[in-house]
Amino acid sequence: MTSHFSFDIENQDPDTLARTGQLHTAHGSVKTPAFVGVATRATIKALEPQALIDLGLQIIIANTYHLHLQPGEDTVAGLGGLHAFSGWNRPTMTDSGGFQVFSLGASKEHGVGKVASIFPGANTPAKPKVRPSKPLVRLTEKGVDFRSVIDGSPHTFTPESVITIERKLGADIIVPLDECTSPLHDHAYTKSSMERTHRWAQRGLAAFQLLKDDETFPNPHQALYGIVQGGAYHDLRLESARTISNMAFDGIAIGGSLGRSKTDMWNVLDWTIPLLPDELPRHLLGIGEIEDLFMCSARGIDTFDCAAPTRLARNGSVFLKGAPRHRINLRNAQFINDDGPIDPQCDCFTCQHHSRAYLRHLCRAGEFSFYRLATLHNLRFLVRLMADIRDAIDNARLTELAREWGFNL
Amino acid sequence: MTSHFSFDIENQDPDTLARTGQLHTAHGSVKTPAFVGVATRATIKALEPQALIDLGLQIIIANTYHLHLQPGEDTVAGLGGLHAFSGWNRPTMTDSGGFQVFSLGASKEHGVGKVASIFPGANTPAKPKVRPSKPLVRLTEKGVDFRSVIDGSPHTFTPESVITIERKLGADIIVPLDECTSPLHDHAYTKSSMERTHRWAQRGLAAFQLLKDDETFPNPHQALYGIVQGGAYHDLRLESARTISNMAFDGIAIGGSLGRSKTDMWNVLDWTIPLLPDELPRHLLGIGEIEDLFMCSARGIDTFDCAAPTRLARNGSVFLKGAPRHRINLRNAQFINDDGPIDPQCDCFTCQHHSRAYLRHLCRAGEFSFYRLATLHNLRFLVRLMADIRDAIDNARLTELAREWGFNL
Repeated sequence: MTSHFSFDIENQDPDTLARTGQLHTAHGSVKTPAFVGVATRATIKALEPQALIDLGLQIIIANTYHLHLQPGEDTVAGLGGLHAFSGWNRPTMTDSGGFQVFSLGASKEHGVGKVASIFPGANTPAKPKVRPSKPLVRLTEKGVDFRSVIDGSPHTFTPESVITIERKLGADIIVPLDECTSPLHDHAYTKSSMERTHRWAQRGLAAFQLLKDDETFPNPHQALYGIVQGGAYHDLRLESARTISNMAFDGIAIGGSLGRSKTDMWNVLDWTIPLLPDELPRHLLGIGEIEDLFMCSARGIDTFDCAAPTRLARNGSVFLKGAPRHRINLRNAQFINDDGPIDPQCDCFTCQHHSRAYLRHLCRAGEFSFYRLATLHNLRFLVRLMADIRDAIDNARLTELAREWGFNL
Repeated sequence: MTSHFSFDIENQDPDTLARTGQLHTAHGSVKTPAFVGVATRATIKALEPQALIDLGLQIIIANTYHLHLQPGEDTVAGLGGLHAFSGWNRPTMTDSGGFQVFSLGASKEHGVGKVASIFPGANTPAKPKVRPSKPLVRLTEKGVDFRSVIDGSPHTFTPESVITIERKLGADIIVPLDECTSPLHDHAYTKSSMERTHRWAQRGLAAFQLLKDDETFPNPHQALYGIVQGGAYHDLRLESARTISNMAFDGIAIGGSLGRSKTDMWNVLDWTIPLLPDELPRHLLGIGEIEDLFMCSARGIDTFDCAAPTRLARNGSVFLKGAPRHRINLRNAQFINDDGPIDPQCDCFTCQHHSRAYLRHLCRAGEFSFYRLATLHNLRFLVRLMADIRDAIDNARLTELAREWGFNL
């Protein structure tokens, strides 16, 4: 473990695997379990970093693939790294580009037109200028060759180059290149992919250790998490959990396909977590619906990231405890004359200042201000929910809190 | 003049017709000359009302046509009027829908497809669902029949109904229905249109006076400005200025075509303003480039509204004194590694927190957060510029200040 990164476990729930703790990074601490905001291109969509501080978000995750393509890691490094570049001087993560590799790869057979829709930023004006006739992605033992969705230019990620890119970006927590398999991949493919990802993990770790004390990078004090793969296959998850745990990572991320249902996902966590070193922090990649925050905290996950809460907000869907799925859609006609806030219990900027009727109007008019106001609410709601979950764990009443929200742990 | 509306002239520039003053409305005062922010659909694009207060904007103008179509004036009235609805509890205006009448009318021969592009909100997802084969607009002595660009439904504006709509919306300053002619209209058409607009002004004023003390409206204490028309024709502008000045309006707006060049516009103001009663406030509709703020203040305009500063911002063009046309475009490659703020002299949120390099990245990525950050800067820049212009008038040095900015009054 690096000297500038550590994880203290504070309390263990008596009934579940849930625990509270503190993750200490070079840019501050994170109380866990915590929701990690998704800032794909070094911004959470529709929110400036200062708004995240105001609403109490502790940590964000940016996307290595997107920032490599634009503005490029050298530009970010030249400007002092992700923290100085974005003005968010608090804990950060970057993912590996593995999800993008999967997304581009899996969509090959559907043609290029399908690609845009899988990108979180598909609503940006940046459209592919070149529509390559060649496949967008080629995986080899060496790494991944792919074409930019921005301009069609060829790029290669290797386990080593991804570490260099992430060192230049300078997030506090980084992960090695992996292949994120699909629920449709069979056991044989998932196994061989997992084995390659393990070899890539070893190569990434070696590259990371070589560069470890290099003060020329914007953030010399990064932590590297390993990624457990294996799809929804019991034997593969066990093998991957053991293999990754035996490498000198600072934490463990659980990635790849988590199956075809929530039950599959709970199973994957139930198989995996008991094999991981207790003392290491555990991150679940790309998961974070409200139900998940309870069910995965209870299974021993310390941090989650998920684009859904912010994407839902932009579509008019805002969180409200007790509503079906704990959310309402402001596009609905029932809110046209509703002068109350989204949530009378909420202390967010939006609920303090604006009515459902005004928000519905902005939403239907497609006003940019709506995206910000709805996103502020959804993130503040999750920040408060995670604080409640931590408090429940500290007071041995997580099961009770989950039941209040309609979930049986 | 209504008791809740008054205009105090404070200082008169010795060299020009510029003057400083205070406009007192039912929702507070406005120091003039002032820039009026364009909040077409009851929001300035990409900014929530609280941000406007923070940056010092004094007054906004919303659009009667757009708010009539969505969410409808009865909805807004039911929620307490524009102020309570939007959360902006400060001075407001609404325009008459006249510009939209012009835009839809002039675009008839170009087909419906052309219509969307002339709307300030053409970037919203709300697309016409119905493409009517009938003309979108029909003008008669009675008023204007038109079809909604949202759903093709038929609507009619009369001088009387527009006053009722504006009374329900409840802005502090409203204007009667007018036809905004085009620079391409000849003298004969412009004259007959002007004469009709004068008759509409009289009808609007009568309707306004009938409803004047009606406490069932959200804002009983509104002021009504008359609109001077006449295109770029000398005789018509004189006639319109005299006619409108002789009606019992609380202020005068200058509308319609201002010709084909800045010189034409200066001429229109030079002809018109001396004929207007000194004691009434004067608004210039839809004009507000930096040069205009100087040149029109010097000609005796008290308030301006213009969508350009916020639209420019969304396109990456941000104000910087001394740059060509006093602006730079953040999309330009020269800013990719620029870690300085847009404007080192600026105290806006954006300049205090973010670099040109980060803003350029957000702009090129099409991030919504860019729209907000750039708009914040441009509006704050104008708020500070107008304060400087007022200060210069108060100190008899407007000509000097204009020269510093490269303009000869």
